[in-house]
Amino acid sequence: MLSFENDYSCGAAPDIIARLAATNTDQFPGYGSDQLTAQAKDKIREACGAPDADVWFLVGGTQTNQTVIDSITPQYAGVVAAASGHVNVHEAGAIEATGHKVLTLPQHNGKIDADELDQYCATFYADANYEHMVFPGSVYISQATEYGTLYTKAELERIAEIAHRYDMPLFVDGARLGYALTATGNDVTLADLARIADVFYIGGTKVGALFGEAVVFTHHGKFSGTPKHFLTLIKQHGALLAKGWLLGLQFDTLFTDDLYCRIARNANAAADRIRAALRDKGYTLTFDAPTNQIFITLDDATRKRLEQHVRLGFMEQADETHTVMRICTSWSTTEAQVEELLALL
Amino acid sequence: MLSFENDYSCGAAPDIIARLAATNTDQFPGYGSDQLTAQAKDKIREACGAPDADVWFLVGGTQTNQTVIDSITPQYAGVVAAASGHVNVHEAGAIEATGHKVLTLPQHNGKIDADELDQYCATFYADANYEHMVFPGSVYISQATEYGTLYTKAELERIAEIAHRYDMPLFVDGARLGYALTATGNDVTLADLARIADVFYIGGTKVGALFGEAVVFTHHGKFSGTPKHFLTLIKQHGALLAKGWLLGLQFDTLFTDDLYCRIARNANAAADRIRAALRDKGYTLTFDAPTNQIFITLDDATRKRLEQHVRLGFMEQADETHTVMRICTSWSTTEAQVEELLALL
Amino acid sequence: MLSFENDYSCGAAPDIIARLAATNTDQFPGYGSDQLTAQAKDKIREACGAPDADVWFLVGGTQTNQTVIDSITPQYAGVVAAASGHVNVHEAGAIEATGHKVLTLPQHNGKIDADELDQYCATFYADANYEHMVFPGSVYISQATEYGTLYTKAELERIAEIAHRYDMPLFVDGARLGYALTATGNDVTLADLARIADVFYIGGTKVGALFGEAVVFTHHGKFSGTPKHFLTLIKQHGALLAKGWLLGLQFDTLFTDDLYCRIARNANAAADRIRAALRDKGYTLTFDAPTNQIFITLDDATRKRLEQHVRLGFMEQADETHTVMRICTSWSTTEAQVEELLALL
Amino acid sequence: MLSFENDYSCGAAPDIIARLAATNTDQFPGYGSDQLTAQAKDKIREACGAPDADVWFLVGGTQTNQTVIDSITPQYAGVVAAASGHVNVHEAGAIEATGHKVLTLPQHNGKIDADELDQYCATFYADANYEHMVFPGSVYISQATEYGTLYTKAELERIAEIAHRYDMPLFVDGARLGYALTATGNDVTLADLARIADVFYIGGTKVGALFGEAVVFTHHGKFSGTPKHFLTLIKQHGALLAKGWLLGLQFDTLFTDDLYCRIARNANAAADRIRAALRDKGYTLTFDAPTNQIFITLDDATRKRLEQHVRLGFMEQADETHTVMRICTSWSTTEAQVEELLALL
Repeated sequence: MLSFENDYSCGAAPDIIARLAATNTDQFPGYGSDQLTAQAKDKIREACGAPDADVWFLVGGTQTNQTVIDSITPQYAGVVAAASGHVNVHEAGAIEATGHKVLTLPQHNGKIDADELDQYCATFYADANYEHMVFPGSVYISQATEYGTLYTKAELERIAEIAHRYDMPLFVDGARLGYALTATGNDVTLADLARIADVFYIGGTKVGALFGEAVVFTHHGKFSGTPKHFLTLIKQHGALLAKGWLLGLQFDTLFTDDLYCRIARNANAAADRIRAALRDKGYTLTFDAPTNQIFITLDDATRKRLEQHVRLGFMEQADETHTVMRICTSWSTTEAQVEELLALL
Repeated sequence: MLSFENDYSCGAAPDIIARLAATNTDQFPGYGSDQLTAQAKDKIREACGAPDADVWFLVGGTQTNQTVIDSITPQYAGVVAAASGHVNVHEAGAIEATGHKVLTLPQHNGKIDADELDQYCATFYADANYEHMVFPGSVYISQATEYGTLYTKAELERIAEIAHRYDMPLFVDGARLGYALTATGNDVTLADLARIADVFYIGGTKVGALFGEAVVFTHHGKFSGTPKHFLTLIKQHGALLAKGWLLGLQFDTLFTDDLYCRIARNANAAADRIRAALRDKGYTLTFDAPTNQIFITLDDATRKRLEQHVRLGFMEQADETHTVMRICTSWSTTEAQVEELLALL
Repeated sequence: MLSFENDYSCGAAPDIIARLAATNTDQFPGYGSDQLTAQAKDKIREACGAPDADVWFLVGGTQTNQTVIDSITPQYAGVVAAASGHVNVHEAGAIEATGHKVLTLPQHNGKIDADELDQYCATFYADANYEHMVFPGSVYISQATEYGTLYTKAELERIAEIAHRYDMPLFVDGARLGYALTATGNDVTLADLARIADVFYIGGTKVGALFGEAVVFTHHGKFSGTPKHFLTLIKQHGALLAKGWLLGLQFDTLFTDDLYCRIARNANAAADRIRAALRDKGYTLTFDAPTNQIFITLDDATRKRLEQHVRLGFMEQADETHTVMRICTSWSTTEAQVEELLALL
Repeated sequence: MLSFENDYSCGAAPDIIARLAATNTDQFPGYGSDQLTAQAKDKIREACGAPDADVWFLVGGTQTNQTVIDSITPQYAGVVAAASGHVNVHEAGAIEATGHKVLTLPQHNGKIDADELDQYCATFYADANYEHMVFPGSVYISQATEYGTLYTKAELERIAEIAHRYDMPLFVDGARLGYALTATGNDVTLADLARIADVFYIGGTKVGALFGEAVVFTHHGKFSGTPKHFLTLIKQHGALLAKGWLLGLQFDTLFTDDLYCRIARNANAAADRIRAALRDKGYTLTFDAPTNQIFITLDDATRKRLEQHVRLGFMEQADETHTVMRICTSWSTTEAQVEELLALL
C-alpha cells in the first residue's frame, strides 16, 4: 500500500548501500577511530564553514537528544523546550531519565519565542525562591520543528542571544535538518547554524541514512566546546556504536557532492506539489510549513476514504469528527508515489 | 520583627521539647526500630482508623515526595500533578532527579480536576504513539494545596476512582494536613483520607514538629502496600534518620490527646480572624481558601508600608504595580501577633 | 595491515548486505512493527525451542546490558557480576548511570562460581544490617565470557538455581553467543539457554551483523516475562531504532538456514588452528578457552616483532616486560588471513 | 539494658537541648538563612583556621555523602573508596542511585594506601581502553575509618597529592571526626584537614548533636570551591532542612568553648579504659584503633554471656564459632556504664 506515513520508512541513499557492499570485507578499527569517520567529520566541518567544530556520530535521535542534553545541562538545571518539542512529548521521558526536567515554553507553530524565553528567565531569576526551583540550564529547539516549520536566521540569532544572556547553551535538534536547509524560503544555512548554535545535529535517519545523527559542537563563545570526555559520556548513555565506521561511511557519502541537500530537496519538492494540490482541492492545512511534513485536518469520511489507499501519520484528534493527519514525504519519495497520492485526494 | 512569612519559623509544640529533654540520656536503638516509633505508628493507625496501614517517618517534605513518588511510580512512567504542585514548581527538580517526569494538569484554585485527569489519561491511551510517551503512572495532589485550598471528600473520591481506573496510585502530600483537617468547611477526615488515598503523609514540619513527615501506606485495593524493601529505598534516597526515635517521639506526642489537630486549629482560627479583617478593610484575597495561608494582592505602596513592620511571604508579581503576597499563620501564632498584624492592616 | 584485533572489524554476512540492497526502496513501518521483524522473532523462538519467548532487538551490547539490567533489577538492588564482567569493567559506568550498583564476585577464568554466589547471598541476608546495603537483585554472566571461556550446562543450571533461590533473574550476555554455541566441547545449546536463563541476548554485532542484539525473555518460572511496557523502557534508554526492520532483516537472515552458527563456526575453526600453532611454537596461552578469543602473554620483543605486521588487541600489562595480548578471529576471518598470521608466529 | 551498640543512641549535648527550649518560640527565616546558622558557620571557619571556607549543614551522613559526591564527581566518573568504605558497603546504593560507580581500593585497617591509589590511576590511564571505563573522578576516605582507625597527617597529605595529580578532589567523611581529632596519637588537626582536603564534613549525629553534618568546602587549589548552586543541589537531593536554624543552633553550640572536642574526648577516654581492660583479660582486639569503636572477636559462649547483659554491635561472622562484635562508646557514655561493662568482661 502507498505510504506517506513518515520519513524513515526506506533504507538509505543508494550510494550508501553500494559503499556498504564495497567495503564489507575491509577491516576497520572500532568506535569511530577509523579513517572514514575522520574524513566524514572533515567534510561536515567544511560544509559548516567551521574548521574548529567537533563532530560526533550517534545512532538515533532520542539517544542524541538524551546524550547531548544530559552532557551540556548543569546538574542543578533543566532544559527549556517548546511544549510541543520532541524531547517533551515523544521520547518516553528519556531526558528526565537522566535527571533533568524539561521546562516548557508555549509553542507558536512549533517554535518558541525569544521574548517569551527572555521573560521566562527574567521571571525565574526575579523569584525570591529561585534556588528552590529548576534553573533554565540549556535551550532545545528543532529545525525543522515538530510541525515542519522553520526558524528564520533572525529568530535563531535572537534565541541564541537570550540563551547566552542567561548562561545557557543553545542546542538545535536537526533530525530533519536537510529538509529545513533546502526548504523554499529558508534563510538559515549550515554555516549560519554553526555560527549561531552551540551544538546541533545533522539528522541522517530521516534524510538518506540507514541511521545516524552527526552532532556538531561549534566551539564558539563561552559555551564552546565539547563536554569533557564526551566519548565516555556517549558510551555511558549506551550510545557508542561498535562499528563506528558505518556512521562515518554514511555521513561521508551524504556530504560528498552535496548529496544530503540534493536528496532533501526531493522531499520538499514532493511536499510542495502535494501542498499545492491540497490547497486547490480545499483541504485545511493545519500549519503553514514549507518542509516535508504536511498536516491536514480531515473529517472522518475523508480520512476513512484516504486510508483505504494510503498510510498517513496520525497526529491528534481535532474534535469528535475531525483528525489532524500527517502526510510526510522524504528523500525517497518517488514521482509515481506523488502522482498516486494526488489522484486520491 | 513581626513575621507571618511561613509556617515553619518556630520550633515545636512545647510538649515535644519537654520530651526531648526528658529522654535525652535514654538509649534508643537506631533507624526507627525503637518502641517510641512503634507506639507513634500505632497511634497514627488508630487516628486513621486503619489498623493495617503501614507508617514510616521521614525528615522533610521534598525528601518525602521524592522517595514516595520514585517508589510508587513505574520506571516507564511519570507522576501527574497540578501545574502549581509543589513537586512541579518548588522542589529543585527532585522528582526528575530520580528519573520521573512530572506530567501537569491545569490547576483550579491549586487543585486538579478529576474530569481533566480522566480526559488526560483517555487522550494519552488513545494516542497511537503512546508507547513513545511518558505514561501517567501515579497521581500527586496536596491537601491543603499550595494555595491553601481544600479538596472535598467527593472530589478526592472521584480523583481516586479515575486514578485507579488508569492503574495509578493516588498520593496525597499532607505537608499542611493538620490545617486541612481542622479548617472550617472541611469534610475530609483522616479516616476518609486513609480510605481514599493509597499513600499520603501527615506533615509535622509545618504542624508542630521540629521536622518530620509521617508516610501512611493504606493497604487497600490493588495499589495497596508499601513498596518492597521501603526501608532500603528510604536509605538509598538519603532519607533515613539515624536517631529515628526523634521522629517517633514527635509524632507520638502530636498524636496524643489530639495535639496535632488542636494546634492546627489555632492556625486556622488566627487565619480566619485575619481574613475577616482583610475583607473588612477591602483587601483583595487572591484565593478563597479556609486554611492557614492567605494570599492577597497588594499594590506597591501598601506592600512597602506593611513590610516595614511585618515579614510576609512573596508569591508572585501580579503586574507592574501589584504583588501577590502570603500571610501565613501556624500552630505557633499567638493572639498578640494577630493583634499586632490587624493593627497594621 | 593484517588485523586480528577484534571481532567487529568487518561489515556483515554478505546475505545481509544483499538483502539490504534488495529491500532498500521498500517501505516499512517503524520501530520494529514490521513483518520482517516479526518473522525474525519467530525464527529465533524456533531456534530456541521456546515458542512463548518474547524477542526484542536492540542496537548494541552496552545499550542492551544497560536497558535489560535496569529493567529487571529491583530499584533497591544491584546486579551481581564477575569482577571481570563487561558491565563492571568496560561500559563506562552505564549500569550505575541507571542507578544500580554492580556487585562483584571473583572471576575464575572469567566465570562466577555458583557456590560463591550462594555464599555471597547467604552472607548478605545473614547480615543484621542488610537492609542498609545493596540487595543482590539480578545475576549477570556472559557466554562466552570476557576471556573466551564457557560455562557448562551444569554450571549454568546451578547458577540459575542459586539465583532463583534468592529471587534473582539470571541474565546472560551473549554478545559472542555464536562463538560459544559452536565451540569445541560446548554442551549448552540455544534451547538449553532458553530453558535455564530468564533473559539472554544473541549477539549480532560480533557475529555477522552490522549491528544488533536479540534479547530473549524466556517466560519461565517466577522471573518469567518481559518487563511491563518494555518498548517504552527501550525508548527511554535511547535504544529504540527508528528503522527497526534493519534489525529484523539481519536476524531473519542470520537465523535462516542456521547462518548464525555456520559463520560462528568459521571463527572457532580459525581460532583452533591458531591455538594449535601457538602451542606448537611454545607460546603461553593465558586462558584455556575454546572460542574465538585467544589471549597470549608476550615478551616485549615478540610483541614488537608481531605488531609490525599484525594488529592485535591489548589486554593488560602482565609485568614489566610482558603483555597479555588478544588474537581475535571472527565470522569474517579468511583462510588467507590465518595463514598469514601463522607465518608470523 | 546496658548498651554499647553504637554512638547514636542518645539525644544531644545538654546545652543543645537547653537552647532548643530557649529559642523554641523565636521566629527564624527558613532553609539556613538565619543568623544562628551564619554564626555557626563563622565558628567552624575559625575552628578550621580557614576564613574562606564555605560551610553547609545537612541532616545525615548518607545524605551528605550522596549529595557531596554527586556534586563534586564529574558525570563521566566514579568515586574511589576503600572496599570497606561506608559509601561502598552500608549506604544502600545511595551513591550509585545518583549515577556514579564506587571504585574500590583494598582497605588496610580501614584505610586506603596512597601508593595503591597512585597505581590504580596510573594503570587506569595506561589502559588503551580507558575511555570505555569509569574514570576515577574523586576520592572518598573517612576519618576515623569504619574500623575506628586514623590516617596520619603524612598519609592524608600523600593521598591528597596523588588525588590532585589525577585531577580528583579529596573528600573526607567525618561522621566520627570528633573522635578522630581527640584520639590519643592523632596528629591531624581540624586546620590540617581544612588545608589538606578539598571538602570534608564534621559529623554531628554521632558527636553530640540530635542530627546534622557540617560540610566544609575549603577553597584551595584547583579543586577549590563549592559546586555551583549547591543549595539547589542540596534541595534536589532531598537534603535541605526547612528549619535550617536547628542545624545552626546545634553546631553553634558544639563549636562554642570547644564543646565538640570536649565531649568527643569523653568517648575516647571511655574506650581507652575498655580497651585496656579487654587486653588485660586476654580478649582479641580485631583492629589497633585509638577511637571510640572497639572491635573484638568473641567465641560464641562469651558472646552469649555478654549479650545477656549488654547490647553490642554486630560486625561479621569470623568463622563458625566466632563473631566480630563492636563495643562503641560515645560523647554520652557515663562512667557508671563503663564500670558496669568492665564488670561483665
